[in-house]
This record gives sequence, C-alpha cells and structure tokens, in this order.
Amino acid sequence: MTDPAPTALHRLRQSNAERVLGCLRRHGELSRAEVAEHSGLSRTTLSTILGDLIRRGVVVETELPPSNRRGRPTGGLALNPGAGQYLGLELGRNRIRLVLADAAHRVQARDDLSYGSARGAADRLALAERAVREAADRHGITLGTLAGIGVGSTGPGELVLAPAAGLAEPDGLRGRELIADRLARAFEVPVGVDNNTRLTALAEATWGAAAGASDLLYAHFSHGTGGGLIIGGQLIRGTGGVAAELGHLCVDDTGPECWCGGRGCLERYASVPAVLRATGHRRWAVLRDALAGDGAESEVVRTAGEHAGAALAAMCTAVNAGRVVLGGELAELGEPFLRPLRESFARRAMRSLRGGVEFGTAGTAPWGGALGGLALALHESPLLARYPLPQHPEQAAAPDAESGR
Amino acid sequence: MTDPAPTALHRLRQSNAERVLGCLRRHGELSRAEVAEHSGLSRTTLSTILGDLIRRGVVVETELPPSNRRGRPTGGLALNPGAGQYLGLELGRNRIRLVLADAAHRVQARDDLSYGSARGAADRLALAERAVREAADRHGITLGTLAGIGVGSTGPGELVLAPAAGLAEPDGLRGRELIADRLARAFEVPVGVDNNTRLTALAEATWGAAAGASDLLYAHFSHGTGGGLIIGGQLIRGTGGVAAELGHLCVDDTGPECWCGGRGCLERYASVPAVLRATGHRRWAVLRDALAGDGAESEVVRTAGEHAGAALAAMCTAVNAGRVVLGGELAELGEPFLRPLRESFARRAMRSLRGGVEFGTAGTAPWGGALGGLALALHESPLLARYPLPQHPEQAAAPDAESGR
Repeated sequence: MTDPAPTALHRLRQSNAERVLGCLRRHGELSRAEVAEHSGLSRTTLSTILGDLIRRGVVVETELPPSNRRGRPTGGLALNPGAGQYLGLELGRNRIRLVLADAAHRVQARDDLSYGSARGAADRLALAERAVREAADRHGITLGTLAGIGVGSTGPGELVLAPAAGLAEPDGLRGRELIADRLARAFEVPVGVDNNTRLTALAEATWGAAAGASDLLYAHFSHGTGGGLIIGGQLIRGTGGVAAELGHLCVDDTGPECWCGGRGCLERYASVPAVLRATGHRRWAVLRDALAGDGAESEVVRTAGEHAGAALAAMCTAVNAGRVVLGGELAELGEPFLRPLRESFARRAMRSLRGGVEFGTAGTAPWGGALGGLALALHESPLLARYPLPQHPEQAAAPDAESGR
Repeated sequence: MTDPAPTALHRLRQSNAERVLGCLRRHGELSRAEVAEHSGLSRTTLSTILGDLIRRGVVVETELPPSNRRGRPTGGLALNPGAGQYLGLELGRNRIRLVLADAAHRVQARDDLSYGSARGAADRLALAERAVREAADRHGITLGTLAGIGVGSTGPGELVLAPAAGLAEPDGLRGRELIADRLARAFEVPVGVDNNTRLTALAEATWGAAAGASDLLYAHFSHGTGGGLIIGGQLIRGTGGVAAELGHLCVDDTGPECWCGGRGCLERYASVPAVLRATGHRRWAVLRDALAGDGAESEVVRTAGEHAGAALAAMCTAVNAGRVVLGGELAELGEPFLRPLRESFARRAMRSLRGGVEFGTAGTAPWGGALGGLALALHESPLLARYPLPQHPEQAAAPDAESGR
C-alpha cells in the first residue's frame, strides 16, 4: 500500500474548502465572520482556504452594505458569479416562470409567460426551452456556463434527477421523468424536478418569509392545496414522496370522496375551485370583491379557513414546526381566511404548540416554484455536491483518491 | 503558520475510524462487507483502519452465525464489549425498567421494579440508582466502566443532556433536568433524558418491529397516548420538543376540552383511562375479557380504533412515514382495536399513502422505554460522538489541532 499521506491531506483541504463553498451556496453573500460561524472552521484554517479559493477565482470578495454606526462598508464573500449559472423553472398549471441566477444567488433574469396554445408536455417543454434561451439572450447571459436546472412541476410524486446526458431509457417517459430528461438533453446539464409547492417551502426557507429557518411548514391554497415541510434544513419527501400533502388531509370524514382515494380532503374546501364552486362564482376577482359585502362568500371563505386551521393543527402536532408560512390565493385574501384559520388552529392545538408557532405569509410569491427550483439546483440536490476543485499536482495520480468519501 | 500536514492526516484517520465505530455503534455486530457498505470506505482504507482498531482493542473480531449454504461461520466485527457499559432506564408511570448493555449492543442485565412507597422525584431517583447498582452486582458488572445513561421519562418536553459533572446550577431543578443532573452526579457519566414513548420509536427502529427502518412512526396507546417519529434515521423532536404528540391531535372538534389546551384530543378516546371511563370498568383485565362478548366494550374499543386511525392518517399525510408501529395496551387488544384503526386509516388516507404504509406491532414491549434510553446513549446523543482515540505521537502537540472540526 502506498503512503496515503498526500492524498489524505489533499482530501482534508478539499473537504474544508467544500464546507466553505457549501456555506456560500446556501446563504449567498456572507462576511468572513459569518463564514467562520457557519463553517465552524478556525480563523487560521479559514484564512488559508479563502486565500486559495480567491486566488483561484472560485470565491470573490464583495462589499457588504454598512451594518455598523460608522457606516463603513465591510468586506463580504460570495461564490464567483462567473463560476456558473443556475436555472429555476416552474411549469405551473397556467404559466411558465423562470429565474436565472449566478452561483452567488444573484438573480440575473426572470420571465413568465402563459402556455398559450402549447398543450401537450412536449410542446410545453419546447416552449420553456425557448423562453429560457430568449431570456438569456435578452440579458446577455451565456448559457454555456449553465451548471444546473431545478424544476417545480404540479402534482404529487417523488423527486426525479437526470444527469446531463439525460435518462438511460428516454422512450415512453412521462411526467417528471420526461421533463428531467428533455431539459437535461436540451441544456446538457443535470436537472432535478420536484413538486412546485414543496419547492416553494425551500424558496421560503432560503429567500422568503422564513429565510434561514431550519424547521418550516409551507401551506399553499391555490388551484390545488398542498404543502412542503423542512426539518433540520432538509426538505422532507417521505417514504413515497408525498410528505406534507396538506390538501389530502381529511378534515371531514363525512365529506365527499376525493380523487385521491381519501374522503373530506382539505382541498375540497380550501382551494380556489372549491371556494368558487361553493359560492357559485366563476372568477376569483369577483369573489374577492364580494368578500367586502355580507353575502355567502364570507361564510364559505371562513369555513375554508377553519378547515385549513384544523389541518395545520394536525400537521404541527405531527412535526412541531415552529414556522408556518401560508401562500396562494386564499392566503392572499387576508383576514377573511386567516382569522378563522388561526382561531381554528388555536382551538385544536395543544397549548405548547400554540405559543410556539409563528405564522407568516409567503414572501416569494408568485415566484416560489421557480425560486424553489433554483434553490434545489443551488444547494439541495447532488448537482452541486462536488464543486470542482483542481487536484494538487502531487496527488493527481494517487491510486486511493476515492477512499474515505 | 506551522505545516498542518501531520495533524490533518491524523484527523482524517480519526474521522474514518469514527465512521467505522459509528456503524458498529448503530448496527451492533456486522460483517466486514457490511461495514464497508455502511461506511462507504474503500477496502484498502477499511483494512488499515480495522487493523488499527483491533490492535488497540477497540473493535473485536466475532463469529457470525452461518448465513450461506455451506454453513461456514463468517467473521464479524463488533465494538469491544469491554470498552464500556451503557445504561438504559425507563422511569415509567408505575415502574422502573433498566437495561445494562455493553458497547456491542449486548444486553447483560435487565430488571424491573415498582416504585413501591417511593413517591417524590428524589426518592424515585434514589430507588432507581439502587436498582441499577444491585442489578450490576448480581451480574458481576463493574459500573466503573459505565460510559453513558439514556433515560425515558413520562410527559412531553425536550431532550435534556447533562455532562458527567451534572448541570451547572443543580438547585431547584425539576422534571428531566433533575433526573439528568442527579443520575450524572450519582454515576459520574453523561446522561440524556427524553420522553419514553419517543425513545420507544428509537428502540423499535434499532431492535424492534422496524429494525433498520429509516422512516418510522411509533404510536403508543396506554395510560397516555403518544408517539415518536423517525425521519432519515433521526429522532424528530420539533421546534418545541413536542413533535409526534399523537395523543393531542384533535380527532373531534366538538369533543371535550383537554388539559393540554386543545379539544377532542385522541388521548380522550384511545387511551387506557379513556376506555375504562367509557365502559365503566375499573380494571383493564376485566375490560379485556368483556371484549369477547357483545357488550358496549367492543363499541368503545372500536371508536377508539377509528379515532386512532384518523389521527394516524393525518400524521402519515404530514410525513409520509412508510412504517407505522403500534404499541401499548390498546394495540395489544389486537383486532378489536386494530381492525377499525386500519379501516379508518384507509378511508381517510390518499391511495398512494394507503398502499405505502406498513403497519406492525411493537417488538420491544414492555422494554421499549428502557431500550430506547439505551439507544439514545449508544448512538443518538453526543455522549459517544467522540470515541476516544489516542493521538499519534508526532501530532500530540500540534497547535492547530482543533481547526476544521
């Protein structure tokens, strides 16, 4: 056996460098003190590593806005914006939303467009591809440096990842696998596809109402009703990929059967179509205006809020998330929906939960799905798990370089 | 700055060794192939590390039962049983249960006793201490090699850890802090105290009905109703330490107020006292016998099962756990409770959940709380996070030894 010393040392250096890069990927721009705090590395070690990363152009020094009284700007650190672009894409029910960002988390371009006449999955994917290329063109972004794509799509199911070459058997693919495969082949980068609501939870924990929170329940009340759960900073998918399917939590066991196979599901009460159906309106804007009056609309929205509060009480009893972020058209109605929701939650939740839960409204809407895709590409998926670091010359040919990983 | 090379190399070796020891702590006895699989280390690296650990007496070679057709025994590996004892203790409602095990997960002694006339916390702790010392004596175990204690106690609340010296301000402590402090001082080892039901989830995932499962919901129907949740191999405690408080999930919002501040909590229906109250019986054995007849007992137990199924459907919708383990006296009633539970679960849960959830009954009862305490001491707490490894002589005085951790 050869002496493992040089390889081992290189790996330790690389592992420390990855820790620093991981902090910057996760949090965007940070001061040196913040990098030290998040990485847990000593000042001496950190100084060596940062010197090396800056020299090699992987990390750049920036100027943070003044945070002290004297108003002097402080030095910040960020991943080199030139080190790669990331694309977050939402293939929503009616619209495509896209966000192009650099590795420093700076959004360079965003766009949204309706599907128009594009109906089938293939047409819609082609439209999305064209929209990305056009947005990049308009903003002078070279897509040759694109490093990863994260996509939020509708409906339940598991995370799908495709390598840059696409999936092994591209024929007959459907749903998320089709999306991942086609986009990977079109842009020649790895692609991750997950539920758009679940990804919004990730966006809210990264940029939104609960930025930096490590435990978060996101609840979305829109055309569908859904949720996303973050525990310990990680998106929880569950054994079958359907964790936090809030819309299919039973809130009335004498209620109607649901397409999901359950009964009295929250989505039958606290979603845009359910509220429209119950009030006899066809357009959301009309219903919204009617809420100011004394009609049946207030009662329907109040019932929706009560059921939502009951479902959230059950969810919070299950996982004791300290932050609950509410999004979607119903949440945007404000107090007519939110007051009964909070009251119903308080009536059902144990005292120690009630005091410990902070409610907020979504801060990333309507870009949550696209920003969540971006967050997936930037720091949740294995896409970026190995930031490229050049081998030190003396270890380039070490035979045991993979051990210990 | 001094050359960090020797320290760095030592740390890498130590980190690989810790990875191997972590696998053995978590899984008990393993074959070399299993250690390689769980640790992800290369054959060459593993062979060097194991040679060193065996030479130093930290790991021992064992003989695994034959697993192949030829019936030849295969070599196994385990932590050296002589490397330390661990104590799992349950301070239950009526009884103390204790389990003494070696670092190889082998239980050497167990005991259970009632509190008798011991009423206050101090008396009960003194009784528990005496019981541990007597059990050790009876089995010839030297408590001088005791390395850690995990305790399951009743009631909600957060994990409390005390270092071997006890807590900093020992006066006026109550509940878990009192337990942790007094036991740490009595045995001069670190102590972790958590909810006994939550710890049973850990026991079930380590030794019980779901051994090796990484996602598990444990539901306990006894004097109280509670639960424990494991996601990705980790016990989930939640922001306020009350995750998986199944007993306080609201199953009937027109139901009675609960001491917890909620309303219509599951514990009001699916617990031993609730069932006794509703049937007018005073003794569980009598109720159990009456279940064979056509009396009101069957109806009460059926309702309890239905409510339990509803609560579990909500919990599984929240986290999509693939395994549900049921324990406690109600679960032990069998089909009169379990059939309505499963049917109620199936009626409410979305189809994709229904097919994906495997129900089982507890395999560690009545030792779940004590074994869970043991699991906490063995592999969940920081007690064992740094298995002592001697410094290599050339690095003993390296100045930067703490950087990078």
